[in-house]
Amino acid sequence: MQFNFQNTKMRYDKMRKNQESIIIDSQAVNKIITTVGLNNVMDELIANLESALSSFSKDETEVPIRSGFNYKKPFLGLVEWMPIMKKGEEVVIKVVGYHPENPDLFKIPTILSTISSYDAHTGHLNYLVDGVLLTALRTGASSAVASRMMAKKDSRVLGIIGCGAQSVPQIHAISRLFDIQEILIYDVDQSSMESLEDRIAPINLGISPKNCSISDILKQSDILCTATSIEPEKGPLFEEFTTKSHLHINAVGADFPGKFELPISLLNQANVCPDFLEQAVVEGECQQLMASDIGPTWIELIHDERLKKNYQSGLSVFDSTGWALEDQVTANLFFNYAQKLGIGTKMTIETYSPDEKNPYGVFHQIPHLNQ
Amino acid sequence: MQFNFQNTKMRYDKMRKNQESIIIDSQAVNKIITTVGLNNVMDELIANLESALSSFSKDETEVPIRSGFNYKKPFLGLVEWMPIMKKGEEVVIKVVGYHPENPDLFKIPTILSTISSYDAHTGHLNYLVDGVLLTALRTGASSAVASRMMAKKDSRVLGIIGCGAQSVPQIHAISRLFDIQEILIYDVDQSSMESLEDRIAPINLGISPKNCSISDILKQSDILCTATSIEPEKGPLFEEFTTKSHLHINAVGADFPGKFELPISLLNQANVCPDFLEQAVVEGECQQLMASDIGPTWIELIHDERLKKNYQSGLSVFDSTGWALEDQVTANLFFNYAQKLGIGTKMTIETYSPDEKNPYGVFHQIPHLNQ
Repeated sequence: MQFNFQNTKMRYDKMRKNQESIIIDSQAVNKIITTVGLNNVMDELIANLESALSSFSKDETEVPIRSGFNYKKPFLGLVEWMPIMKKGEEVVIKVVGYHPENPDLFKIPTILSTISSYDAHTGHLNYLVDGVLLTALRTGASSAVASRMMAKKDSRVLGIIGCGAQSVPQIHAISRLFDIQEILIYDVDQSSMESLEDRIAPINLGISPKNCSISDILKQSDILCTATSIEPEKGPLFEEFTTKSHLHINAVGADFPGKFELPISLLNQANVCPDFLEQAVVEGECQQLMASDIGPTWIELIHDERLKKNYQSGLSVFDSTGWALEDQVTANLFFNYAQKLGIGTKMTIETYSPDEKNPYGVFHQIPHLNQ
Repeated sequence: MQFNFQNTKMRYDKMRKNQESIIIDSQAVNKIITTVGLNNVMDELIANLESALSSFSKDETEVPIRSGFNYKKPFLGLVEWMPIMKKGEEVVIKVVGYHPENPDLFKIPTILSTISSYDAHTGHLNYLVDGVLLTALRTGASSAVASRMMAKKDSRVLGIIGCGAQSVPQIHAISRLFDIQEILIYDVDQSSMESLEDRIAPINLGISPKNCSISDILKQSDILCTATSIEPEKGPLFEEFTTKSHLHINAVGADFPGKFELPISLLNQANVCPDFLEQAVVEGECQQLMASDIGPTWIELIHDERLKKNYQSGLSVFDSTGWALEDQVTANLFFNYAQKLGIGTKMTIETYSPDEKNPYGVFHQIPHLNQ
C-alpha cells in the first residue's frame, strides 16, 4: 500500500468531526432489526459473510487465535477476546463470556458479549455494539453458509440436537437457504423441546418441530445442527449412528477445551471442515482428530466447486467454533444500518485535549482544581 | 474459594437490576476530576496503586502479557489489548492504540485508549471508560510509586527528557510525593519545551521548568523521567553520562519492540526494576539486558525494605512499559467515583431476551418482522 496524501487529508477532515464513538446498545439493535426486518437482516448477513469468506486474504486480514481466561473455580466459565485486523483500516475485538450457570442462577444468557471496532490508523473506538444477539445471528448465518457449501442442495429435513438459545437462529438461517419441510428436535431437557415451537414463531416457517430420539434424527435428517451445552469431557452426544449418505452436520456446541459433541467414529467417516483450524484443534470437534484427518477450512473450500459437490453427496461436518471474521462482518452490518438509519448513541469516550501534548488541557479553564 | 449460596443470591438480586453498563465518557471523566479535584484524584490513585502492588498475588490475579497488532505499513502503529483478571470477580481489558502520526496528521493524541470491565461470573460489561486521560494519570502515578521505592527520599531536582503529553502527569505525580524545587527539561522539539510551563499550570507548582542539555539534566537531577517518542532502532537518547550517585530514572518511553531510551552502559551500572518482566524484555529497556542483569520487579521490591534503601542510594531505573494492574486500579477508581457521584451514562448494551433460551424473544410482540 502506498501512502496517499489525498486519502490522508480526507481522513483528517473526517477525523476532526469524528472523535465520537457510536454505542449501538440492545435497544438500538432491536430498533435496527424491527426497522429492516429480521429476515432481511439475516439474508444480508449471509450474503456479506459469503462475500467476506470469498474475498478473504491473509495478506489483508490478520486473525490471531482467540485467547482469554478460562476457569473451573469458583464457577465454570471463560472470558475471551477475539481480535481481527483489516490492515490499515480496522481492528475489531469481540469480548465474549461463556458462563453456563447464567440461565439458572441469573436468568440471563450463557453467552454475554460486546463487540468493539477501532480505527487502525488512529486507535479511535469507532463503535461498541451488543454481541449477544449478534453472536446468535452470526452463528446461525455461519451454519447456513457452511450448509450451502456442504449440504445436499434439496435438503428438506433439518435435525436439531440441543434446543437452547442457539437452535433458534440455526433454524432461521438454514431455512433462508433451504426449503425446509420438517424439523426434528431433541434435547435432554423436555421443556426446551416443548418451548421451541413458540420460540421460532417470529420466523413464520409454519412448521411444528417434532420431538425425536437422537438416533431417529440422525437417520432422517439432511442437515443436522448440534448446539448443546454438554460439559467438557462428557461428550460425545451419541456413539452409534445410522445416517443418510449425504448428511451434513453443523457442529456448533464445541467451544471449550475438552468439549465436543460428535463421536470420533463419525468424524473419521466424514469430510470435516473447520471454520478456523488453529482454534478448532483446541476447542472444536477437531480436538479429536489428527491434522491429516481434517479437511480444508471453509475459506479454502468456498473456492473449490468440485470439492463442494463431492462434500454435498457425502457425510460432512462443519466444525463451527466461531471465527472473528464472522463477528466483524456482523458488527459492520449493524454499524452500517445504524449510520444509515441514524440509530445508536454518539458519545465522545476518549479524552481529546484541545492541546494533544497536554492531557490536562481539558482542565485549563477550571480554577478550583487544586483542592 | 468455596461456593457461597448467600453470596450468589445477593449477586443474583443485584444482577436482576444490573443488566446495565456504565459508559464513563470523556465528559464524565472531566466532571469527576473537576468535582473531586485533580490532586485528590492523583493522591488516591497513587495510594490505590501502592496498595494493589502490595497485596498483589498471582493466585488471585492473572495478567497475561499484552498482545496485539503492530505494523509499520501503511503507517507505523499498534493496537494492543491488555487483559487482567481478578479471579471470580472481574476481567479488565484496556485496548490501546499507539500511532505517532496522530498529533501531526489529525491533531489528536498518539495514544488513544478505552478500558472495559467485565463481571467474571457472568461476562457482563460492567463499564467502559476513557483510557486516554486515565493512561496518562496511571503512567504518572506508576512513576511516583516507583520513585517512592527507588529514589532518594529528599529528591529536589526533577529532570524531564521528552516534553510531550506524558511529561505533564509525570511532573504532577512525582511532585505529589517529593518536594520538587527545580524542573530541568529537554526535548528535540523547541516548542514542546517552551509550552511545558503553560501545560503544567493546572498543577500549581509555582516552578518554571528550565531548558537544559541532556548532559546537564543527567548531572543535576535526583529523579529523571524519560518519556520520548524516539523511533524504534534510533535509541538510546544519549551515550555519555555523568550523574549523581543516587539518580533514579523512570524510563517511560520504551513501549515497542526495538524502542528504547537508555544506553546499555547506564543500565549495566544501575539497579533495573521492570514493572512487568515478560513485557519489559520484549518492548522495554530490558530488551537490552540479559535476564541475569535485571533486578526484581516492583511487586517484589515493594516488600523488601532493605533492598529499597539500597536502591535509593544508588543508580536505579524503573522500566515502565505499562502493566494491566495499573489500568485496573485506575479504571476502578473512576468507576467508584462515577457510582458515588452519579456520573456516567447507564445503558443496556447486551441484549437480554426475556426468555434466555430465545435470542429472538425480544421480537415476539412485533407482527411485521417478516418483510
